[in-house]
Amino acid sequence: MPEQLPPLAPPARLLLGPGPSMVAPRVYEALRQPIVGHLDPYFFEVVEDIRKLLGYVFSTRNEFNIAISGTGTSGMEAAVGNFVEPGEKFAVLANGYFCDRISDVARRHGAVVVRLEKPWGEAFDDQEARDFLRREKPRVAAYVQAETSAGAFQQGKAICEAAHEVDALVIADCVTSLGGMPVMVDETGIDIAYSCTQKGLSCPSGLAPLTVSPRAWERLRKRTTPVDSFYLDLRLLESYFHDHKYHHTASATMFYALRESLALIAEEGIENRWERHRHNHEAFVAGIEAMGMRMHVAAGHRLWTLNTPRVPDGVDDAKVRQRLLNEYGIEISGGFGPLAGKVFRIGLMGYSSTGENVGKILDALKRAMK
Amino acid sequence: MPEQLPPLAPPARLLLGPGPSMVAPRVYEALRQPIVGHLDPYFFEVVEDIRKLLGYVFSTRNEFNIAISGTGTSGMEAAVGNFVEPGEKFAVLANGYFCDRISDVARRHGAVVVRLEKPWGEAFDDQEARDFLRREKPRVAAYVQAETSAGAFQQGKAICEAAHEVDALVIADCVTSLGGMPVMVDETGIDIAYSCTQKGLSCPSGLAPLTVSPRAWERLRKRTTPVDSFYLDLRLLESYFHDHKYHHTASATMFYALRESLALIAEEGIENRWERHRHNHEAFVAGIEAMGMRMHVAAGHRLWTLNTPRVPDGVDDAKVRQRLLNEYGIEISGGFGPLAGKVFRIGLMGYSSTGENVGKILDALKRAMK
Repeated sequence: MPEQLPPLAPPARLLLGPGPSMVAPRVYEALRQPIVGHLDPYFFEVVEDIRKLLGYVFSTRNEFNIAISGTGTSGMEAAVGNFVEPGEKFAVLANGYFCDRISDVARRHGAVVVRLEKPWGEAFDDQEARDFLRREKPRVAAYVQAETSAGAFQQGKAICEAAHEVDALVIADCVTSLGGMPVMVDETGIDIAYSCTQKGLSCPSGLAPLTVSPRAWERLRKRTTPVDSFYLDLRLLESYFHDHKYHHTASATMFYALRESLALIAEEGIENRWERHRHNHEAFVAGIEAMGMRMHVAAGHRLWTLNTPRVPDGVDDAKVRQRLLNEYGIEISGGFGPLAGKVFRIGLMGYSSTGENVGKILDALKRAMK
Repeated sequence: MPEQLPPLAPPARLLLGPGPSMVAPRVYEALRQPIVGHLDPYFFEVVEDIRKLLGYVFSTRNEFNIAISGTGTSGMEAAVGNFVEPGEKFAVLANGYFCDRISDVARRHGAVVVRLEKPWGEAFDDQEARDFLRREKPRVAAYVQAETSAGAFQQGKAICEAAHEVDALVIADCVTSLGGMPVMVDETGIDIAYSCTQKGLSCPSGLAPLTVSPRAWERLRKRTTPVDSFYLDLRLLESYFHDHKYHHTASATMFYALRESLALIAEEGIENRWERHRHNHEAFVAGIEAMGMRMHVAAGHRLWTLNTPRVPDGVDDAKVRQRLLNEYGIEISGGFGPLAGKVFRIGLMGYSSTGENVGKILDALKRAMK
């Protein structure tokens, strides 16, 4: 028998990194509600509530809105693995780490990946996106709406229009936008969007919201090769969530928490929520600039959910982050890849996006950089 | 904005199906502890506690014991997807639904599947298992230690010995045995074992415990083709859990709950826990036989965690299950596939395995069949 463990006693952190964000008390309360089985009538009521609420936060009339039983990356893998068949061309507009990740995932699933590249933190303009897709004529195009590695927002309308011209489907990674800034699935023309629960939705991680357009479903129904993942096969997931046929044992606990996180958004009103995120982001940027620091991403392209101020010359970002964690109990994150040591990554997402937290992090950052 | 939702109010169920099982109060308490980030030093302390405790419940000295961020089926997919390369031979000893599922998963990942088949509920004897593996000489052999669809336990020692003779690795599905009956990874010779959290461990579903032998790791290190899943790539998961390099945002919430579930097992003592499960299973069988019913699986091959009494002639199993749920708040499950309408599936696992629950289900079953 292993030695006696000390009691579980997690430290109280203020979570202002790229996710997870703080969790609302009502969501913690949901987590300890009695579980029901994964085929219980009550479980499917919760599934249906989530389906409708996801339509609302994704701004879509799609009927297929589900939560995959894995983190955001499982949503990425489901999106790629279901909609690309071996040997098909997969085009990525690549301007950050998650663009590299989706390229890697697509290659693993047998796609031929072509990429248009930009430095991390820059966005593609409409014309270059159009030219790329018209030239490549891929089967699927992918972009990252909110690049967590760099802090830039990517507009998608021109990408979707050009992709549809050449009969390609569009996958958009909305991991760091959903619940914090407008995702606008239908207005943009996105076919498959996925996200996570632990950022703009302020729920613990563990599920990946995903929505699929009728156009994409039509493609999927005609697919002839099997999806290489059983766990992430959307046709099997449809038969589970829609027809109540067993596929896997989805977690009542996590579904309760997601329902309550989404209900909080509906009660706040999604537009009000976006406005709160925009407002707190702008207050943060004003404070950063008042400290003589600069933002990595140009104005107009910045995420409201995740800020990437540049690390001032001569400042050791790892030491600053360590001090914030140890002395202030605040978690933020650093840059990596080409941005290693060059930016901080500071999230103001969901329940973490408050005026009080903007004040706290600006103050603590100032002290920790001294 | 969607209509106002009613408050979250799950019904109180007594969970005596094939999983999930009841969750202990201490585990519910863990679920509402404040989350930390997926790269927080405290998170990795929890990961290390889980690693050691999983070694204890799996009865193994393996160093690689992790919880995959998905349900039991993601553990199956990780086991198959990492250890089989396209075109390799994958041998399944098939005597139930999860044997069919692992065959399907292996085919999706490019394996050539060969099977030795038995009716659901029967077990393979040593000699037939040996003959099959010596003849087929597969690269990987798989069996289901505890078949949730049928209620039978499969001994593994002869399978592992014969597989190792022909240089095959052995995958064992321990989804319905872990925490409820002896899995004995090292003594049996299993190379890769996976399970779930919501059965013998009595934690909500959402994670898949998995252990890998040094022999299997050696094979994995030499693998040349990429694993087709990024999310389930064990080499990437090793670099996350061991070297603390970001791979996905594991859920602090679920990891807290799993730690506490495992700590409860260590405090009870794994042998005591097995004995409790055996004892309550035997009391259940005695009660079933006293009612004039018969068990589907022969004595000596039955699971202690999941019982499959045969549905008496003239009884409509679906109606009985409906009455148990609606009138008694008890969830049990029915048979499916070749056992549809022929057996009940009644779990006595983890926190659900008590003398009181044996009495409750026998009594309710008697009344509901009238």
